Amino acid sequence: MAVWAFEHPFLSGLVGDGEVADMLGAEAEMVAMISFETALADAEAEHDVIPAVAARAIGDALGVFKPDMALLAASTARDGVVVPELVRQLREVAGKPYGEKLHFGATSQDVIDTALMLRLKPILEVLDRRITAISGQLEDLAERFGTKELTGHTRMQAAFPITVSDRIASWREPLVRHRARLAGLRKTALAVQFGGAAGTLEKLGDRGASVRATLAAKLGLADAPQWHSQRDRVADLANFLSLLTGSLGKFGQDIALLALAGDQIRLRGGGGSSAMLHKQNPVAAELLVTLARFNSLQLSGMHHALVHEQERSGSAWTLEWLVLPQMILSAGAATRIAAQLAGNIERLGR
Amino acid sequence: MAVWAFEHPFLSGLVGDGEVADMLGAEAEMVAMISFETALADAEAEHDVIPAVAARAIGDALGVFKPDMALLAASTARDGVVVPELVRQLREVAGKPYGEKLHFGATSQDVIDTALMLRLKPILEVLDRRITAISGQLEDLAERFGTKELTGHTRMQAAFPITVSDRIASWREPLVRHRARLAGLRKTALAVQFGGAAGTLEKLGDRGASVRATLAAKLGLADAPQWHSQRDRVADLANFLSLLTGSLGKFGQDIALLALAGDQIRLRGGGGSSAMLHKQNPVAAELLVTLARFNSLQLSGMHHALVHEQERSGSAWTLEWLVLPQMILSAGAATRIAAQLAGNIERLGR
Amino acid sequence: MAVWAFEHPFLSGLVGDGEVADMLGAEAEMVAMISFETALADAEAEHDVIPAVAARAIGDALGVFKPDMALLAASTARDGVVVPELVRQLREVAGKPYGEKLHFGATSQDVIDTALMLRLKPILEVLDRRITAISGQLEDLAERFGTKELTGHTRMQAAFPITVSDRIASWREPLVRHRARLAGLRKTALAVQFGGAAGTLEKLGDRGASVRATLAAKLGLADAPQWHSQRDRVADLANFLSLLTGSLGKFGQDIALLALAGDQIRLRGGGGSSAMLHKQNPVAAELLVTLARFNSLQLSGMHHALVHEQERSGSAWTLEWLVLPQMILSAGAATRIAAQLAGNIERLGR
Amino acid sequence: MAVWAFEHPFLSGLVGDGEVADMLGAEAEMVAMISFETALADAEAEHDVIPAVAARAIGDALGVFKPDMALLAASTARDGVVVPELVRQLREVAGKPYGEKLHFGATSQDVIDTALMLRLKPILEVLDRRITAISGQLEDLAERFGTKELTGHTRMQAAFPITVSDRIASWREPLVRHRARLAGLRKTALAVQFGGAAGTLEKLGDRGASVRATLAAKLGLADAPQWHSQRDRVADLANFLSLLTGSLGKFGQDIALLALAGDQIRLRGGGGSSAMLHKQNPVAAELLVTLARFNSLQLSGMHHALVHEQERSGSAWTLEWLVLPQMILSAGAATRIAAQLAGNIERLGR
Repeated sequence: MAVWAFEHPFLSGLVGDGEVADMLGAEAEMVAMISFETALADAEAEHDVIPAVAARAIGDALGVFKPDMALLAASTARDGVVVPELVRQLREVAGKPYGEKLHFGATSQDVIDTALMLRLKPILEVLDRRITAISGQLEDLAERFGTKELTGHTRMQAAFPITVSDRIASWREPLVRHRARLAGLRKTALAVQFGGAAGTLEKLGDRGASVRATLAAKLGLADAPQWHSQRDRVADLANFLSLLTGSLGKFGQDIALLALAGDQIRLRGGGGSSAMLHKQNPVAAELLVTLARFNSLQLSGMHHALVHEQERSGSAWTLEWLVLPQMILSAGAATRIAAQLAGNIERLGR
Repeated sequence: MAVWAFEHPFLSGLVGDGEVADMLGAEAEMVAMISFETALADAEAEHDVIPAVAARAIGDALGVFKPDMALLAASTARDGVVVPELVRQLREVAGKPYGEKLHFGATSQDVIDTALMLRLKPILEVLDRRITAISGQLEDLAERFGTKELTGHTRMQAAFPITVSDRIASWREPLVRHRARLAGLRKTALAVQFGGAAGTLEKLGDRGASVRATLAAKLGLADAPQWHSQRDRVADLANFLSLLTGSLGKFGQDIALLALAGDQIRLRGGGGSSAMLHKQNPVAAELLVTLARFNSLQLSGMHHALVHEQERSGSAWTLEWLVLPQMILSAGAATRIAAQLAGNIERLGR
Repeated sequence: MAVWAFEHPFLSGLVGDGEVADMLGAEAEMVAMISFETALADAEAEHDVIPAVAARAIGDALGVFKPDMALLAASTARDGVVVPELVRQLREVAGKPYGEKLHFGATSQDVIDTALMLRLKPILEVLDRRITAISGQLEDLAERFGTKELTGHTRMQAAFPITVSDRIASWREPLVRHRARLAGLRKTALAVQFGGAAGTLEKLGDRGASVRATLAAKLGLADAPQWHSQRDRVADLANFLSLLTGSLGKFGQDIALLALAGDQIRLRGGGGSSAMLHKQNPVAAELLVTLARFNSLQLSGMHHALVHEQERSGSAWTLEWLVLPQMILSAGAATRIAAQLAGNIERLGR
Repeated sequence: MAVWAFEHPFLSGLVGDGEVADMLGAEAEMVAMISFETALADAEAEHDVIPAVAARAIGDALGVFKPDMALLAASTARDGVVVPELVRQLREVAGKPYGEKLHFGATSQDVIDTALMLRLKPILEVLDRRITAISGQLEDLAERFGTKELTGHTRMQAAFPITVSDRIASWREPLVRHRARLAGLRKTALAVQFGGAAGTLEKLGDRGASVRATLAAKLGLADAPQWHSQRDRVADLANFLSLLTGSLGKFGQDIALLALAGDQIRLRGGGGSSAMLHKQNPVAAELLVTLARFNSLQLSGMHHALVHEQERSGSAWTLEWLVLPQMILSAGAATRIAAQLAGNIERLGR
């Protein structure tokens, strides 16, 4: 196997991002799903939906739970989603009579969507930190070389002279706006999903909204009415990821063009060639362009998934599973690579 | 000719939107470009960059200007942009010695990008008004039929009963969030573009930023440092347009599926068939799905255009010209059609 | 109005293609739809499905038919397709008792899809002719400058010296393969669509296949079982259009990069700038990149439209109407522009 | 880690395809790259470019080669491609004085592109075999249920009655055409890539074309002039993959809609729900729609990659690495799932 470049034995050297992948992958998802079930039991106990003793038993059991992955895979093939079998396993370890109180009033989508939000939260923090760092690197470059002259180019032709600061501003200012966008998204888009089978929390009677608010607070997410078939939050997050990789793609394209002309940049550590051992290639710069284009493609899929029919669309929802994780890893890789590229700029301008 | 469905002799009946098209098309663009040049002359006169008498002469001449369209087309073919020839014509009508003060310190991209923002401003107002209206129609439907039962469907299968209110909430709540997004974008994304040939306002000396602020105020746009090669604002606007059509696409898909089952909706005025005269087709509902998918495609292009190399990318910028206008018209058409569809719902639920 | 760049008062100077637009637009579609109805009546008369006298009366009446366009637009809005009202008007001019024999056994999709194929046929011939011409221009350039040296670039870096011939081969060889692809498509993809309301030609009894074969022969199209919900032919045509613009986009990108370096190409007639009157911009080269990216986006839509549910999908089919025409015009524009660009190359290599 | 659904601990149950993944993944690529180097040495020895003894030594050494994967990953990060370090390791095992004859006259892209073609060859055979099998299953269904009545639907509305055979034809006929497309592609698109550093085989003097022909024959690929910057073959293969998943997506969508109505199909073994244990979900049908949409997105990327600048584009080429493998796996998964879905149809029509 090992097909996917982002987790590939040698291509991950190019586009991998171990830190973000660890926060996003199957193990992290398992942890997040268990967090959901534990917090749900606690919240339901607080609001007397289930007995406190049941919540404690559930919490204890889930703290040491080890999933049977083979069974999970087989049942996902059948059910289209991992949750039914996972809940069965969780209930088994919670044991009788408390197991049946686990996942009470919830449905698969509650678990999966909330587990996505739980993983996105620290990932967005990592991205924010990295954007800040790249922005700082660019400021440093501006400080060192900002007053030097650079040939401004319009329509791929040498035009007026500009300063290095002018060009760096075109790389850095979008990052500043991206941080503002991110701050907004972290407040509004990272919301708990809890609606039950048909989205109405029908099993919780008049305590649905209170349990949901408590659940959100326990998980550190925004409280919001269930949004299982309203995917604008997720599409908006995807838009952010692609804005980010797009802006870094412009940075990469500019560096590659500077390296092509050759006289107004000095780069450390470009890549070699199997045929020309002396040649230095601006690999990182090109990769940023690649990742920008890649996310531009995937974003389209997240918007197609807005056409999420009825109460739950298997096809639109699964499309998100195929598309969003790679957008997140691309954003991770692009920020990692951009930092490295910025660090390799030894001189700008003339 | 007449190839494009949105402005087509008969297909515009389906996807046309005369109101939005009028605010966006070539005539409106000409008006906006002239507004830019007039306001720029005024702003530069206020800051003693050009003589006040020149600004007055420019304003008078431009007030009655009629472009030579054939020459504009021919020169656009050569220059890649309409502005050089337009400025030539404008300077001619302004006459000597004031004509040369027109467009002083500006470049093509300042005119085109600002003229885009000037047209987007009222268009976003129209969209906001329409979203509000659709949201109101949906509230009315919830008031009339909200307590009725509807079969909730998950994964294309009948599941639990829900209420009509539950389903309508899944259509209406994203619209509420879209209005909030729109309010944010109208504040931050509708910014003046003014940078001069290389983006540095080099001809204005130390008065660049002041002239730009005055220009923005005169045009009713946000002031911002030049962003000619930083296209995140424009891509973010495109994201909004596609979020909007995507949410309306979910509404359309749901209505089409309700019409397919047939027993839980009554629609007025579906379309006929050339072969089956009695058949009623949910044409408007299907169109909303079409427009959602169409904008999902186009959005990808606006994100590719973020890779806007150097100080001005002819290829990335022109791609926006091909893509963004049709996203705007799609959003216009989708809001028009959604309002019509909501108005045609005579009964929901059972 | 006048929003769409391809048919825009001044932007059509950039990306318009009058020749192809005329073969594709509403008037050409009307002519093609009338050809379908006339040929259908003739074919049905030959096979004794309708009286010969009816076919003659229909042919005479349709020869002088002028549509009421306002009514067509209004009814398209209602029906989702122009055909029901068009057939009504056509039957009216054919008069009683023969009018009712017009469109006998056919449905809207038969008319629209066949009218698309009828227009594509001469358009593909134009494209073939243009590809041949561009290929010839490139051969001429190779003859004139082929032995000169050019700096080969890999990963945006100067690498080994190559010859001008080597580079030209990378532009010309795909065109040769595109002509072979086109020859294949013209044989298999340009097929008549004739299936009747439910695709079964049920009104024609056992003469369905014979009438269809005769109809195809009269229209100069391939005969094929009805394919109304099988859109692979149309998607395959779209793939060809985007392969073509993609290959020309590589040509454009290479020319733009040559112009950027400046020393290994001399171009006639690049575009001007409103700020720098002396500057020569490789506008045509950049446009080829733009059109390549544009068609790459649209192609995705034609493939989404393969998910054409049941016997006829209003949403997937209408998506084709929004997407395919602009792919055709892009291919037209790209071939027009590439020919112009090739003609403007005054020197290559050193 | 374990982020990617296609190789995910539990999601691979849904969209995994072990057979195709094994033929495509890193191990298979390593085998294919080594086959290239071995066959190249043999071909060069046959044409007296390198000594026969060198070719034998290379063949012997490579037969037992085990790569140092950690070094490969690290060097890929630096070089943008795995080949320089791989060749270094291979030369080391081949030893002096023969090692330097390995990879003689070749470049990274020769190895990678040819190794892609070598893996595609058996994968296309698998797809062909699966398409044939699905087509056979559909024929069987037509034999068993073909004369039964099915409600034909146009524009999501019940229209005329059709037969089960009519509907099955709309699923099966595209598969027949896909097999014909595949046969064509297997002849023309699966071509060896061999051009050397600048694409001119400059180190092989006048024996370049002969060595390439022999190399192609040894590898079972078509011979063709180097095509390293001409990506139409690869984009055309991608088009095929997406045509295939698109047609299967229509099959899936139709089955999901039949399951929604419920009375004209009986399906075995749909998926369960964590909330409604009795409910049967048409998971496989929905997945086919998901995979169709997914490949529609990715196809756009393969066409963007046609804009492959100069002699070798790091950014466009790497984009293919991110996009094409997942298109291949999607096609694998879709054929696997479609076969399963067709096998689960217990009754069609009424």
